[in-house]
Amino acid sequence: MRKQLQALRDVMAEHKIDAYLIPTDDFHGSEYVGEHFACRKYVSGFTGSAGTLLVFPQWAGLWTDGRYFLQAEAELKDSGIRLMKMGQPGVPTLDEFLRNSLQPDQVLGFDGRCVSARAGRRYYRMAKNRGARINDRLDLVDEIWPDRPPLSAQPVWTLDETHAGESRWDKLERVRETMAAEGADIFLLTSLEDIAWLLNIRGGDVDCNPVALAYLSLTLEACHLFANGAVFPPDVLEELEIDGVDLRPYDSFYAYTNRLTADHTVMLSTRKVNTKVLTSIPTGVRLLDRTNPTETMKAVKNETEAANLAKAHLYDGVALTRFMYWLKKNAGKAPITERSAAAHLEELRKEQPGYLQPSFDPILAFGPHGAIIHYSATEETDAAITDEGFLLADTGGHYLTGTTDCTRTYALGPLREDQKAAYTAVLRGNLNLAAARFKKGCTGVNLDYLARQPLWDLGLDFNHGTGHGVGYLLSVHEGPQSIRWKSMGQDAPFLPGMVTSDEPGVYFDGDYGIRLENLMLCVERETTLFGTFLGFATLTLTPFDLDAVDPALMTPSEKDLLNRYHAKVCETIAPLLPPEEAAWLKEATRPVE
Amino acid sequence: MRKQLQALRDVMAEHKIDAYLIPTDDFHGSEYVGEHFACRKYVSGFTGSAGTLLVFPQWAGLWTDGRYFLQAEAELKDSGIRLMKMGQPGVPTLDEFLRNSLQPDQVLGFDGRCVSARAGRRYYRMAKNRGARINDRLDLVDEIWPDRPPLSAQPVWTLDETHAGESRWDKLERVRETMAAEGADIFLLTSLEDIAWLLNIRGGDVDCNPVALAYLSLTLEACHLFANGAVFPPDVLEELEIDGVDLRPYDSFYAYTNRLTADHTVMLSTRKVNTKVLTSIPTGVRLLDRTNPTETMKAVKNETEAANLAKAHLYDGVALTRFMYWLKKNAGKAPITERSAAAHLEELRKEQPGYLQPSFDPILAFGPHGAIIHYSATEETDAAITDEGFLLADTGGHYLTGTTDCTRTYALGPLREDQKAAYTAVLRGNLNLAAARFKKGCTGVNLDYLARQPLWDLGLDFNHGTGHGVGYLLSVHEGPQSIRWKSMGQDAPFLPGMVTSDEPGVYFDGDYGIRLENLMLCVERETTLFGTFLGFATLTLTPFDLDAVDPALMTPSEKDLLNRYHAKVCETIAPLLPPEEAAWLKEATRPVE
Repeated sequence: MRKQLQALRDVMAEHKIDAYLIPTDDFHGSEYVGEHFACRKYVSGFTGSAGTLLVFPQWAGLWTDGRYFLQAEAELKDSGIRLMKMGQPGVPTLDEFLRNSLQPDQVLGFDGRCVSARAGRRYYRMAKNRGARINDRLDLVDEIWPDRPPLSAQPVWTLDETHAGESRWDKLERVRETMAAEGADIFLLTSLEDIAWLLNIRGGDVDCNPVALAYLSLTLEACHLFANGAVFPPDVLEELEIDGVDLRPYDSFYAYTNRLTADHTVMLSTRKVNTKVLTSIPTGVRLLDRTNPTETMKAVKNETEAANLAKAHLYDGVALTRFMYWLKKNAGKAPITERSAAAHLEELRKEQPGYLQPSFDPILAFGPHGAIIHYSATEETDAAITDEGFLLADTGGHYLTGTTDCTRTYALGPLREDQKAAYTAVLRGNLNLAAARFKKGCTGVNLDYLARQPLWDLGLDFNHGTGHGVGYLLSVHEGPQSIRWKSMGQDAPFLPGMVTSDEPGVYFDGDYGIRLENLMLCVERETTLFGTFLGFATLTLTPFDLDAVDPALMTPSEKDLLNRYHAKVCETIAPLLPPEEAAWLKEATRPVE
Repeated sequence: MRKQLQALRDVMAEHKIDAYLIPTDDFHGSEYVGEHFACRKYVSGFTGSAGTLLVFPQWAGLWTDGRYFLQAEAELKDSGIRLMKMGQPGVPTLDEFLRNSLQPDQVLGFDGRCVSARAGRRYYRMAKNRGARINDRLDLVDEIWPDRPPLSAQPVWTLDETHAGESRWDKLERVRETMAAEGADIFLLTSLEDIAWLLNIRGGDVDCNPVALAYLSLTLEACHLFANGAVFPPDVLEELEIDGVDLRPYDSFYAYTNRLTADHTVMLSTRKVNTKVLTSIPTGVRLLDRTNPTETMKAVKNETEAANLAKAHLYDGVALTRFMYWLKKNAGKAPITERSAAAHLEELRKEQPGYLQPSFDPILAFGPHGAIIHYSATEETDAAITDEGFLLADTGGHYLTGTTDCTRTYALGPLREDQKAAYTAVLRGNLNLAAARFKKGCTGVNLDYLARQPLWDLGLDFNHGTGHGVGYLLSVHEGPQSIRWKSMGQDAPFLPGMVTSDEPGVYFDGDYGIRLENLMLCVERETTLFGTFLGFATLTLTPFDLDAVDPALMTPSEKDLLNRYHAKVCETIAPLLPPEEAAWLKEATRPVE
């Protein structure tokens, strides 16, 4: 048995806790979590990005999803922790398991800061039904983790208005208007991307997401930011002060919410705040459970952001296109691996104006690795890239001018017919979705079919969403909109200014995978007597690989879409390339017939 | 002021009712209601198919939707009833109006049998919040309507197994299985189509829907049918008895539900039962609010029904095609009006084997009338059909072999270019939707885009759903599936065996309207490693009007879809036509290039 697990059980006994839950989240429900928050990994040894550990004195189990079954099985070996494969027949959900195993008068413990308010509510309800109790104020792992990394404390900096396009003050006032309309006098915001967007600040406390650890309370007159003061340079503090934002200690947030009184009406989103935020607010305070108004505000890019994004994608297109040239010239000739190729692409991005950092861990997946949707090459798996089959490259960057996210699948040698057919089907789906013209009010559920139709016609499919929202120098995955065929119940309609990915794919286990991803800006096309019609402007600028395309499988209008896209890529990117590469690009973007 | 309104106010005063609500529904939430149920029409004089009348001693208002604004305005003139235009800015909804006008201690009255359980719940909640009361056991109109038509009492007949494809007993047992799985020992069913489907009986108590007025209570051992015994022939009664179905008086249903006890677990659908059903059940009885299991069972046609439907559509196609021939030959030459054309089509249908009656009031709309989506020609509006512009014909029939519903728009003379462009766009939408191939689990929200894309590309649209489910010799509009782009929250996925209409259109007020409608049977296409894929087989067999098609606006694959459809129409219908008409059909279904 893992000694960390035994240590946890020892402190559980001390605290008289019968079951202890360790989720993966930080205090803000961030997509990635810093090392300080890696409690589940510390106790279980499982390093995947999603999973929940449940520990009883005599039994422990880890729930994770299909992406991680193999990895978890290996990492949990001899740990004394049972792998609970989510979604597999006969495997109870965590909630079901708790409902059946928690005994009357037992105590379920967890750190309420790491559990979403909605999950916390479910646990409270379940405990009540079972006659059990909850203790949500216990960070037990902290007691057994001697060399626990401290909270991240990266410097905060200001995103100036030439990049943000709207002043902090104007944003605060816009949010205050929605508060007034809702009748709220306090708005509690704990999502790091939303706080960064609202205050035009950036930081470095979450992997790949340039945000700062913080909570925020906005009133109609003031704005309290709860964060580590040490990471705010004096000029940033001054700027914030001018806009009425005062800084308070990060940890003092819960004392603040605990002092709220019954004459307050507090707006927050139970989809976003953690359990402790909710339970720290005294009963009697009127709560308005609303979607954070910042969610749609930050999703709808303003004109400055949109203009900047065009620049980010131009320079990112140069890096990506140079990478393609280098790869196609060198694959099978020079010694290249998945990791060295990723490093080369990162070098090319670093040469671009305004480039800051990757927007997510790059996925470079050669051959059969391409079929692993969330593949990330490690030292052990790092494959040599030869001149056979496909390399799938899903990468992106944060620029001062915005965030990019692009997937290309490159043919490194002769392809089989079925490989070309699959590539062409994915490409057609990508092109057709980007060409959609649709009534205002449509959601991704209405449009997803366009991306899948060519695959479904062949009896193929891909088991992931077709598109996600993309932040501006924030998270590369942001809501509220998405493109998927299964409705989430409350799907958000597209609005002009939203940036969404368009990334159909197809994956053949053990053989190869293909994914083609561009980012698209939603734009208004026209308003007629019949309504307002929207469409997409493609932001990403780098060729699809014509070596993998079979034009005979495309309709004339699809060929036209491809040729027009390639003409634009050539026209914009070629002038920024060395002459030899520009000449190659012209050939790589030649019209197909 | 209308004297019926005054009479109602007099009895309201007698009964100490401060506000009285008269909806349009019968006791079963049927789509059409018999004359006995036309209380709202009797009191208000408004004859539209949708609307709710609310009467106070000093004020009365009628809520109806955009289809009926003009008609209601005319019919309510001098009635003393205010027209409340639903959905117009500044017009409160009925619920909002009640919330603001009902005073504490006042009594809102209605006949709970004519108000859906969900609406009733809203009224109860609203009254409680206002400190007001509800009396839902008052049929006040009955007291003031001297010559009120009696309840319909049309004979009941049996749909034999060669038409129904599944025995009554097997259907009852299938429903009992779902009851057992839900833990219910009683299932209350009040939807007339579902009762008719379940018992393999048909009647004639609702316009265009061959159903019988009845309530049903199914237990694990017995089945009580509450209906008018006088309309059941002895052999039908005997058959029902053999399958364990006993007949009880129609009116005794509420006494029955009132006698249910706390040891019963009752399954019902609050989306379907009326308020009185719900309030008549004593507190303490355990209720399971579930979608009626019969809803999906009857929507999924069995193999016999599917084979029969092919026959119904073959013969209906003969009638429709002969009508097209007659119309195109005679328009502008013989004196034809919208109503005489409808009568001619009805004659042609009557010549077909197994034809019983229209499945809805035919819509034949010439020229500008075609732009009125729910147009129905009256003696006053009946337009002469000339050899100019379009005739839109949306008609359908009930056959022993199933129900048809088809819309064609015929060119009666030379068309303008914009008319051809509009027709071609609607046609492309119809063809592309029918050709969809999609993953099992998809709903109409996923596919609607296919029908609208050609219109949206031109800045056009239509303001109605794209498709509705169709019953088998039952209602021409049935759930649970539909095709629309705006999600209803819980959209039902397509299942093999479902019949759905495919009816895009476009409407230019005061000018013309186009709609093209086929029925489609959902079929399984293939199952691969990536899942199960479904598609549609088109049932309707009659030409689109090539005189209105501009093939230059179609893609090669769309032309191929059209040509293949027309080839099938010609191949199946021509052999059943007189030689001259068969020769004409060959030309009318010629391939386009």
